[in-house]
Amino acid sequence: MMAVGNPKGTRDFNPTQLAKREYIQRCIESTYKKYGFLKIETPAFEHLDTLTGKYGNEGDKLLFKILNSGDFLSKVPPIDLIEKNSAQVIKQLSKKGLRYDLTVPFARFVVQHQNDIVFPFKRYQIQNVYRADRPQKGRYQEFLQCDADVIGTASLLPEIEFIKIYQSTFEALKLDDFQVFINHRKLLEAMALQVGLSENFTAFTVLLDKLDKVPLEKLQADFLKLGLKKQDISLIQSWMRPIPFNLEEIKKLNNTIHESNKLSEAIEELNFIASNVNSKNAHINLSLARGLDYYTGCIFEAKVPQSNIGSLSGGGRYDKLTDGFGLKNMSGAGISFGLDRIADVLEERNLWPKNLLETTQVLITQIDSSSLQDIFAIAAELRKKNIRTEVYPEAKKLKKQLEYANKQNIPFVITIGEEEKALGKFSLKDMISGRQEILSFEALINQIQKSI
Amino acid sequence: MMAVGNPKGTRDFNPTQLAKREYIQRCIESTYKKYGFLKIETPAFEHLDTLTGKYGNEGDKLLFKILNSGDFLSKVPPIDLIEKNSAQVIKQLSKKGLRYDLTVPFARFVVQHQNDIVFPFKRYQIQNVYRADRPQKGRYQEFLQCDADVIGTASLLPEIEFIKIYQSTFEALKLDDFQVFINHRKLLEAMALQVGLSENFTAFTVLLDKLDKVPLEKLQADFLKLGLKKQDISLIQSWMRPIPFNLEEIKKLNNTIHESNKLSEAIEELNFIASNVNSKNAHINLSLARGLDYYTGCIFEAKVPQSNIGSLSGGGRYDKLTDGFGLKNMSGAGISFGLDRIADVLEERNLWPKNLLETTQVLITQIDSSSLQDIFAIAAELRKKNIRTEVYPEAKKLKKQLEYANKQNIPFVITIGEEEKALGKFSLKDMISGRQEILSFEALINQIQKSI
Repeated sequence: MMAVGNPKGTRDFNPTQLAKREYIQRCIESTYKKYGFLKIETPAFEHLDTLTGKYGNEGDKLLFKILNSGDFLSKVPPIDLIEKNSAQVIKQLSKKGLRYDLTVPFARFVVQHQNDIVFPFKRYQIQNVYRADRPQKGRYQEFLQCDADVIGTASLLPEIEFIKIYQSTFEALKLDDFQVFINHRKLLEAMALQVGLSENFTAFTVLLDKLDKVPLEKLQADFLKLGLKKQDISLIQSWMRPIPFNLEEIKKLNNTIHESNKLSEAIEELNFIASNVNSKNAHINLSLARGLDYYTGCIFEAKVPQSNIGSLSGGGRYDKLTDGFGLKNMSGAGISFGLDRIADVLEERNLWPKNLLETTQVLITQIDSSSLQDIFAIAAELRKKNIRTEVYPEAKKLKKQLEYANKQNIPFVITIGEEEKALGKFSLKDMISGRQEILSFEALINQIQKSI
Repeated sequence: MMAVGNPKGTRDFNPTQLAKREYIQRCIESTYKKYGFLKIETPAFEHLDTLTGKYGNEGDKLLFKILNSGDFLSKVPPIDLIEKNSAQVIKQLSKKGLRYDLTVPFARFVVQHQNDIVFPFKRYQIQNVYRADRPQKGRYQEFLQCDADVIGTASLLPEIEFIKIYQSTFEALKLDDFQVFINHRKLLEAMALQVGLSENFTAFTVLLDKLDKVPLEKLQADFLKLGLKKQDISLIQSWMRPIPFNLEEIKKLNNTIHESNKLSEAIEELNFIASNVNSKNAHINLSLARGLDYYTGCIFEAKVPQSNIGSLSGGGRYDKLTDGFGLKNMSGAGISFGLDRIADVLEERNLWPKNLLETTQVLITQIDSSSLQDIFAIAAELRKKNIRTEVYPEAKKLKKQLEYANKQNIPFVITIGEEEKALGKFSLKDMISGRQEILSFEALINQIQKSI
């Protein structure tokens, strides 16, 4: 007998869990819609060419690769097989991979369909992504991302609207302690310049980003190894303090970061954005870098500090996302909510609305099969009125059938026993109050419709 | 430069296409809900052990297999590599596969979670499935299945309700020429007995099933090769005629099929089902066999004969689906709609409701950035009232912005020009009538809310 189970790092969702996930999805999706985003979908797998080289070396290792169909070994050079050169052989064995995020497939979509798209193109996309990460608590191999992007404009309005979207989505989810952290790649460049690490820009931002989880003392040696001067450690320290996102504080950035073109450009953009958003729960975080190399302007992250779970969303401006697919000058910006982490926070805080699961509203029991015509007539009438109705499939003891209604939280049970049949009526039991009435067909339908 | 495209056999869905697909999904899902089915989801990939051996040899070949992570060649015996024995090597290279249908993952789910499930368990599931089929018109490697199953009861009520579900779903989709074809595995067994092909039962049913697409003359040789006697060809011919699904016609099955235990059992079941459904558009089709071996009782297929596209849904009763996972005595029944084919039919017949795509309802133009505060104030108010609102991101020429509204079918455009600003008012343009008004903030909001 084989072991029965889903693969590690994946999950089954039962109706209750799924109803919760769909609630979050509705909150995000309805906000996206109100802002004029339109939904698209792309396939679960892409050509490996499309995916590789987009997520760094670590990312490439985490791509799920699909084995070619048929006699997949036939074309592999024997020498590679004999030497067991997995890295070399993989190019022959696999031409497709599962999507790793929604951003790269979106870039591919935009380039492929550019002649059918009206720009600026505002799209959202809610689909699973796949990463061959070592499974651990809160980290899955299949998880749901909810992305929105505006592509085809260098305007800063998308940035402004994404901050507004954060504010209204987290309020809708009742995550009132949400914080939106904002930074700008050009601020990071100005900072790197100031501490003489422009040559090691990527490594510098990777270290900065770690400050979120690792205390500075522990990273100090790494910074020094990179070339940071000892006296600049206190500067790094000062950059870690969150700065309220308002005009006055943005002006003061001049005090901590040396003047440079990059600095002025960043400040000008941040000023424009800050003057058009509510500064509520928004901060500049100079140590925020976001791993992904493709960001070129503003970057975002959203968190709920009272839950120690990392970021619930991230995003930013990219100028060259579609360059690799041959389409230049397509600036865009986007954000991505991680639904799984949001679900974990709502679970931890028990912030689910009541009655998310749309259970059956009426169970019709079966005393014997002779009443089936009446039973199906009631069921049809209730369903016509959009009332979720089940007929218990077997003429089991009534007690068993009521137990089923109880376990399934079904609020009403209809029974046609001997007595009811003689009267041409139906018994209706309210499973919460326990109250039972004998009613005519019309009265029964009315009564249920009124109570639901 | 790499070629830019999605893999063959997969599709991107733009907002218009996706809105159409979601319409079909809503029709199916709302019917499932009304009948008391609850939604679950399972991962996109399963252990290969879970999938292999469930779909026949042909099916096994069509499973998408995921390459193990890391140094996948290290554990493969060198001899298999040198001999390029793909079939042998695959067991070492891949432990996971993409789901091929929703039924097997459902069976795995039921067994794995049996202690948390209240039986009879009515679940539905709407997810993509993956088959490494040669891509061709109307056949995809990724396509959406919409399944409903009742498991944990041998009662025939599920069969009755599935026929009702067919009737109400196809009516909702305005596919009024739909036909539900019904057969019973035990009728097929009685037929095989009668023509002396019980030993070749599977091959016999495979041939019968082909009669749907291939004329009997062309299959005659195959039937004879299987052992059919020449005089029984006319019997096969007579079995091909669809039989109205009512009590009178079911009784007459005795005239064309020899008496046997199997026959009486099948007739008894069909009688019970027929007495509880509307016979509208329902027929018995004795040549319907359904490829899948796991069916043991009633089988279904739904078609729209006026479109030559094959079946839009299929299903049936299975008694041993979970046996392979170690759980016996779990009879169940289910159906599965293929969303892609339904979409093709609705497209061919242009049966889409109007305005499926939820486009932006109001575009606010930008004359210059000085009005942004007013613009965002209106946008916020409209969005609060659930009106889908976009702000054009750049202060381009008004003509350009109106062109955008036109291309995107946005019905209302708000503009704050010099004149409006001086008056503290807003201009509202109805893009369909071309009518333009100058209104106060409150009047503007009211006017839009009224018209939408």
